[in-house]
Amino acid sequence: MKTEELIGRLKSGERRALAKAITLIEGARPDQRDLAQEVLQSVGVVRNSSFRIGITGAPGVGKSTFIEKLGMHLLSLGHRVAVLAVDPSSSLSGGSILGDKTRMPELAADNRAFIRPSPSSGALGGVNRRTHETLLLCEAAGYDVILIETVGVGQSEVTVTEMVDCLVLLALPHAGDEVQAIKKGVMEVLDLLVVHKCDGSLVESAQQTVREFRNALQLARHKVPSWTPPVLTASSLHGLGIDEVWQQVLAFQKTVKSNGWFQQQRLTQNEAWFQHAFQDEVLDLLQRHPGIQQSIIEACKAVRRGTVAPFTAARELAATILGGVP
Amino acid sequence: MKTEELIGRLKSGERRALAKAITLIEGARPDQRDLAQEVLQSVGVVRNSSFRIGITGAPGVGKSTFIEKLGMHLLSLGHRVAVLAVDPSSSLSGGSILGDKTRMPELAADNRAFIRPSPSSGALGGVNRRTHETLLLCEAAGYDVILIETVGVGQSEVTVTEMVDCLVLLALPHAGDEVQAIKKGVMEVLDLLVVHKCDGSLVESAQQTVREFRNALQLARHKVPSWTPPVLTASSLHGLGIDEVWQQVLAFQKTVKSNGWFQQQRLTQNEAWFQHAFQDEVLDLLQRHPGIQQSIIEACKAVRRGTVAPFTAARELAATILGGVP
Repeated sequence: MKTEELIGRLKSGERRALAKAITLIEGARPDQRDLAQEVLQSVGVVRNSSFRIGITGAPGVGKSTFIEKLGMHLLSLGHRVAVLAVDPSSSLSGGSILGDKTRMPELAADNRAFIRPSPSSGALGGVNRRTHETLLLCEAAGYDVILIETVGVGQSEVTVTEMVDCLVLLALPHAGDEVQAIKKGVMEVLDLLVVHKCDGSLVESAQQTVREFRNALQLARHKVPSWTPPVLTASSLHGLGIDEVWQQVLAFQKTVKSNGWFQQQRLTQNEAWFQHAFQDEVLDLLQRHPGIQQSIIEACKAVRRGTVAPFTAARELAATILGGVP
Repeated sequence: MKTEELIGRLKSGERRALAKAITLIEGARPDQRDLAQEVLQSVGVVRNSSFRIGITGAPGVGKSTFIEKLGMHLLSLGHRVAVLAVDPSSSLSGGSILGDKTRMPELAADNRAFIRPSPSSGALGGVNRRTHETLLLCEAAGYDVILIETVGVGQSEVTVTEMVDCLVLLALPHAGDEVQAIKKGVMEVLDLLVVHKCDGSLVESAQQTVREFRNALQLARHKVPSWTPPVLTASSLHGLGIDEVWQQVLAFQKTVKSNGWFQQQRLTQNEAWFQHAFQDEVLDLLQRHPGIQQSIIEACKAVRRGTVAPFTAARELAATILGGVP
């Protein structure tokens, strides 16, 4: 398929073309990256026509089943849904754990939805940049709700806040003090909290957890003015609470679109994306530069021989290389 | 205190001098970094006289209490113990959650131990480099066992394997399938698994968990030849199993020091540290370069105005800057 054809099919919403374009973005080869750049540029400026929702929470909280239920609900409302995964642990697991299609069988079988597992991470922390670019491609292909799944730990929430409009945290119904303590920083960035797996014998403890989270959220300062993150309960098992969550997402959307936060945040995110992409590009160019590549190899050898400490070698090489920049 | 005096006191094992030197390393100001570099260089090549142990596990598994018990036990055996924390979530929490001295009251009160909370992370992912440098300073000050606490998620285990000789994973006694699934990648890098909080009503389910982990570990390929990670149980509450863990750490140490793995891994780690430090230095130098700083600010403005897409701006700026490198 020629690039122009790929772009045309992508824009007309063809899933195979979208998948192919994303593969280009995830590619490590220079020629893939050049093509990817061409596709991205043709896609043009972001149209702000989509809503990007981050779904986070600790392992075992049931993110996949929740996304499956929410996704099916959104399809029934006429939305086109894309599911992406940001997996900070993917450098070891090969990215196969989160976002796996087999964990969302219904959604994966529906051709109105698009599911993309997390890319295997590159050496340069490229997951960030690639996920952002993938997001733009999904939007160009007409997906209007993008769900971004991420494992719930500080680092990945920070990353995900740089690319979503709304962050939903899933919590277990019997969340103890210690678990909540680790979430302190996250409290400040989430927009909606869902006490999940609220079914069977856990309904009662879930109510207690809801109260605790409400108290905690009342104390935390929140990033969006005039929005206190609501705390809801849901059970994907029984399909309960899913529409209530969506209604709150819509309420949030209305708030941030009317008070300017939505636009403001997207601009700030674009700036952050620029910074990340710039760092990636710099490091990438340096490592593709034949002379510098050679210097890096030699410095590595010296470090291995023990003739120079790692930090000293790094400092000296960086200074030598960039000494030439006017 | 003059730098020479600081170095002298550090080498003689003075805790205050060590703390001060680490503060220099964590500093963001160019003059602090220059001083830090001087201190590090005077410390010289790594002496390999210490053993570095990573302690990881999910939030709530009891890492702090375990480290406290193990640390006190090591002090009673005549070791000098330093505890460092690598906290991937610290950019939000300010680094105050893990490694907090108040969570290890006994160890913190003992002047044979040195506890350092995780540094607040810099913009350039400097936690890595700083932790490594902190490690070297602790060793220069005569600490022979370094315990490095990290929250148990893929990303941080990968990071921590780049700086420890032995990785101990703590697991909960009632670890379910889903929790173990997420640990798949971690199985390949851990050297010792401790089913923690093995007390009270949990003793029975702990035995089942031990069996499950043993099976899983038998299936996983392990990085160290001729070492299958043992699975132990421990209760910090009752002080049970702590010495058994230490004995296994010693057995591991004996294995890796006799089969060459220890030396090999340290060399590989030094190379990885060089790569990290090099990337940090490059990005740092670029951002301190007045002309480039100006270009970055202007590109940011353009991105904010929406006249150029973030990735395009990044690519163009990187190419312009590094076009001048011979």
